[in-house]
Amino acid sequence: MTEKPLILVTNDDGYQAAGLRKLVLLMKQLGEVAVIASEHPMSGMSHAVTVKVPLMPRLVAKEEEYTEWLTNGTPVDNVKLGKHTLLERKPDLIVSGINHGSNASINIIYSGTMGAVLEGAIDGIPGIGFSLDDYSPKADFSHVDDYVLRITKKVLTEGLPEGVALNVNFPKRSETPLKGIKVVRQAKARWVEDFEKRVDPFGRTYYWIGGVFENGDPRSDTDEKAMKEGYVAVVPVKIDFTDHQLIEKLTF
Amino acid sequence: MTEKPLILVTNDDGYQAAGLRKLVLLMKQLGEVAVIASEHPMSGMSHAVTVKVPLMPRLVAKEEEYTEWLTNGTPVDNVKLGKHTLLERKPDLIVSGINHGSNASINIIYSGTMGAVLEGAIDGIPGIGFSLDDYSPKADFSHVDDYVLRITKKVLTEGLPEGVALNVNFPKRSETPLKGIKVVRQAKARWVEDFEKRVDPFGRTYYWIGGVFENGDPRSDTDEKAMKEGYVAVVPVKIDFTDHQLIEKLTF
Repeated sequence: MTEKPLILVTNDDGYQAAGLRKLVLLMKQLGEVAVIASEHPMSGMSHAVTVKVPLMPRLVAKEEEYTEWLTNGTPVDNVKLGKHTLLERKPDLIVSGINHGSNASINIIYSGTMGAVLEGAIDGIPGIGFSLDDYSPKADFSHVDDYVLRITKKVLTEGLPEGVALNVNFPKRSETPLKGIKVVRQAKARWVEDFEKRVDPFGRTYYWIGGVFENGDPRSDTDEKAMKEGYVAVVPVKIDFTDHQLIEKLTF
Repeated sequence: MTEKPLILVTNDDGYQAAGLRKLVLLMKQLGEVAVIASEHPMSGMSHAVTVKVPLMPRLVAKEEEYTEWLTNGTPVDNVKLGKHTLLERKPDLIVSGINHGSNASINIIYSGTMGAVLEGAIDGIPGIGFSLDDYSPKADFSHVDDYVLRITKKVLTEGLPEGVALNVNFPKRSETPLKGIKVVRQAKARWVEDFEKRVDPFGRTYYWIGGVFENGDPRSDTDEKAMKEGYVAVVPVKIDFTDHQLIEKLTF
């Protein structure tokens, strides 16, 4: 009998998130599952690693083909612990999410969900980040199952090129069924910040981060556009930040 | 009289770091300087943003053509505050560093120093991250002045393409003078983690993150190679994570 693939599951909304539980249920259909999740929400943690305090993972479930650890670390810490310390073998796949909120377009750069899968890509472990364009803790994930399974099965079978991961974003559940999958580019969009200024009881000024998402990208083949049209948006993303085209042109 | 350029200076080692103070001194030669720095070290914070607590910047210096704020935020928070709230005009340039430790190769993905300049690039503000391949808090920065000024002047004059920033890494000070500047690619290297396992007085296991940097990239035009040969390594880096070559090839 062939050994089942080992799938490492993490996220950035923390271990209690409905999106993580949905992903665990789906992954159990495809392999042995190890969850390494943060005890507290880690949204906006990007590719951060914990260096000031030690990591203290706690094993909270150990069943046939299923283990679960909770940690005080970030999503990237969780993957690092998984790759090198907690798991008995190297995972065959890392999946992260399903995030409560879109990680399309520039959101990827802030995303702990995507940080986790990019960390896997550094060590040649295929990874897929799944996100739903619905921030609600009670978001409805009932339309994603078939697509999550289809994309994951393909990556389990065929792998991904070196240094590449997938950023998969689902439109919010609506009355219209999903139209299919589009492989697209990261839209050039941004958050226009609008910090909310307040004064505390001691007279000190403080700011809550806020902002409005602005997509001014007119191209027809972006993740934002695909989602708006009711498709699942898949963007292949790289751990190489280099602008290769620019190398020849820059002189000092 | 033409208005002097406004240069926003930040880093991820915190406001007390020698590298930040060096960068401030150099930037004062080129324009009006606004420092927005973290009160505490933020190494390894990548592109993280603070969402759990509000930001509380404190103005600690306000002089002719020089202001300085300290914050409880990350390097990316500092840039966001600068772009939208604290500064009276949009900065003409963001410089970050000089980091105590290399941000070449895969280190960029973990780097708060580079997070800050990439955040500027999202809003079309040219940015340069400077790092020295020497982690010591007492690192010797005496060989970098001319290069920092040369690169910065060029970017102030010519700008950078949309969505691009520069990742500049200096070799550690040695008896051999720097040989010049090379515009190069991010090397394909990685940290091989080796968590140090300990047991606390209450019997709980915990782990300190550690690791060895392994560069197996044989290419002659990488940042790691250039630094090893005694050059200043400049890598143009993008905020677009998309693997554009792969889009046509992926199907589901």
